[in-house]
Amino acid sequence: MAVYTDVTDEALFAFLGAYDLGAVLSFKGIAEGVENTNFLLHCEGGRFILTLYEKRVNPDDLPFFIGLMEHLAAKNLSCPLPVKTREGEALGELAGRPAAIVTFLDGVSARKPDASQCRETGRALAQLHLAGQGFPLMRRNGLSVEDWAPLFETSRNRAEEVSPGLAYEITEELDALQRQWPCDLPQGIIHADLFPDNVFFIGAKLSGVIDFYFACNDALSYDLAIGLNAWCFEPDGAFNATKGRAMLQGYESLRRLDDEERLALPILARGAAMRFLLTRLYDWLNVPPGALVKPKNPLEYLDKLRFHQTIDRAGEYGLDQ
Amino acid sequence: MAVYTDVTDEALFAFLGAYDLGAVLSFKGIAEGVENTNFLLHCEGGRFILTLYEKRVNPDDLPFFIGLMEHLAAKNLSCPLPVKTREGEALGELAGRPAAIVTFLDGVSARKPDASQCRETGRALAQLHLAGQGFPLMRRNGLSVEDWAPLFETSRNRAEEVSPGLAYEITEELDALQRQWPCDLPQGIIHADLFPDNVFFIGAKLSGVIDFYFACNDALSYDLAIGLNAWCFEPDGAFNATKGRAMLQGYESLRRLDDEERLALPILARGAAMRFLLTRLYDWLNVPPGALVKPKNPLEYLDKLRFHQTIDRAGEYGLDQ
Repeated sequence: MAVYTDVTDEALFAFLGAYDLGAVLSFKGIAEGVENTNFLLHCEGGRFILTLYEKRVNPDDLPFFIGLMEHLAAKNLSCPLPVKTREGEALGELAGRPAAIVTFLDGVSARKPDASQCRETGRALAQLHLAGQGFPLMRRNGLSVEDWAPLFETSRNRAEEVSPGLAYEITEELDALQRQWPCDLPQGIIHADLFPDNVFFIGAKLSGVIDFYFACNDALSYDLAIGLNAWCFEPDGAFNATKGRAMLQGYESLRRLDDEERLALPILARGAAMRFLLTRLYDWLNVPPGALVKPKNPLEYLDKLRFHQTIDRAGEYGLDQ
Repeated sequence: MAVYTDVTDEALFAFLGAYDLGAVLSFKGIAEGVENTNFLLHCEGGRFILTLYEKRVNPDDLPFFIGLMEHLAAKNLSCPLPVKTREGEALGELAGRPAAIVTFLDGVSARKPDASQCRETGRALAQLHLAGQGFPLMRRNGLSVEDWAPLFETSRNRAEEVSPGLAYEITEELDALQRQWPCDLPQGIIHADLFPDNVFFIGAKLSGVIDFYFACNDALSYDLAIGLNAWCFEPDGAFNATKGRAMLQGYESLRRLDDEERLALPILARGAAMRFLLTRLYDWLNVPPGALVKPKNPLEYLDKLRFHQTIDRAGEYGLDQ
């Protein structure tokens, strides 16, 4: 929720000179995207999102992200389609940042998703996993099990400021996760950040999926574990098994989980909770000066992690046996 | 540049139930408006801005602002038109705030206005002054000459933190302004905040004026003095007389200044610089915790004030004699 980089009208018009989008009708910074600067750009040629990639995005990854959106859109997933210049380039530079224009998707994010929206989201996630097959580029998940311990090292000294006992609890859990993490689950392209912010609905119908800037290759079922964490807990911290069942059923309506994936779901959900606990902890302790974004409370994910530790079998998430 | 208040989709849909705008196609917080929370709302019925009025706006003033936009739009000024519910209400409540929906205006703000844009803006300001005639509601300017000394009292003790000698310099200038402030200039509705952010262009053509939340009754020529401060200085602090002349000529193409207004222009420009110096100084010293907005440097307006102190006669601003 921020606009990090200001773009002058002069610089914008110069940048747009390479595209065939017609005159600019409006251009507004929007409060979306924690990692990047986003503008809603309305031209005679339509409505678009102009994204400036800020320093948390590695420019070397941009061809993967841009190519992936093109690939998924071509497979009929409703996601932003990168727009090319007359020269055929989907990536340019604006205000000193790498920049791209993608098509605008209609729809509204669910701030309090209901079970039906969880089901639609599960279904879209499976659609994304199937559509990702055959995408030729690879990107390692930089926030997977082997990255968590080094990431935690950057926060360990100050973890007790956030909650007494936190450093010990995370250390123990990291050991457990490293011992038990499954390595042979079906792999593919995952979204890796499918939070309610990143899914649009028009009425009850899912209209699009956005923000592919954490997408990578990893276990498909880990993406579903991220979804359970992001969509199926109530504001008071309780897991809503109706929403969990809806998300899992939506997913399985397109892609059935195999036995190993089912067995792994509780540990994957613990890992997913750990991943967001650690990045939120880091952000909480490292608010940059002049930040326009309030960091999210990491302890929400500690509670989710503790919940998943109590789960013996995936059926408790609402998974059909 | 901020979104202060989050609106859930549930609350939004409940609020929109009173309007005839059709289904919601998108809803995005936009980085515009320092005083209020603004969302771009796209419905089947068109594109709109939904504004939540935050605590710096006095709810008692809202009928004036809403009524003024209706009045000016009816007089063909291109400005946002408040949209009414089926019950005929233009003001409602959302997320605990007073809220209104207005029509969306196409256009892009000039970040670095050129002389032609200054001319167009001067012309639009005169059009606004003429269109404001006959508007029946009144609102006192709460940031005029008699308000500056009490406002400065809230910052005086800490003014030296910002710049050595600042408290003395402001005190002297406030005395001078109070002695010399003209009281009998032609009055009417003024915008009172016509900065480049608040004027939209499509190509070279001015497409609209927004943000009437400082509008009030005051000397018309004081509004022009605000415009000279806001539009006609270069980033290095130099006054650009070409832009000043363009703005004044644009204004006079629709409304000719009388002799008293011409004579008063230098003191009005000093007063306008003082008004923004004081509010920026206050904001600089009183950044609220969790603020999403960086305060603007007050000293920019100290430099402008010092420039206006050197002006003997309005001709130096580029005014035709």
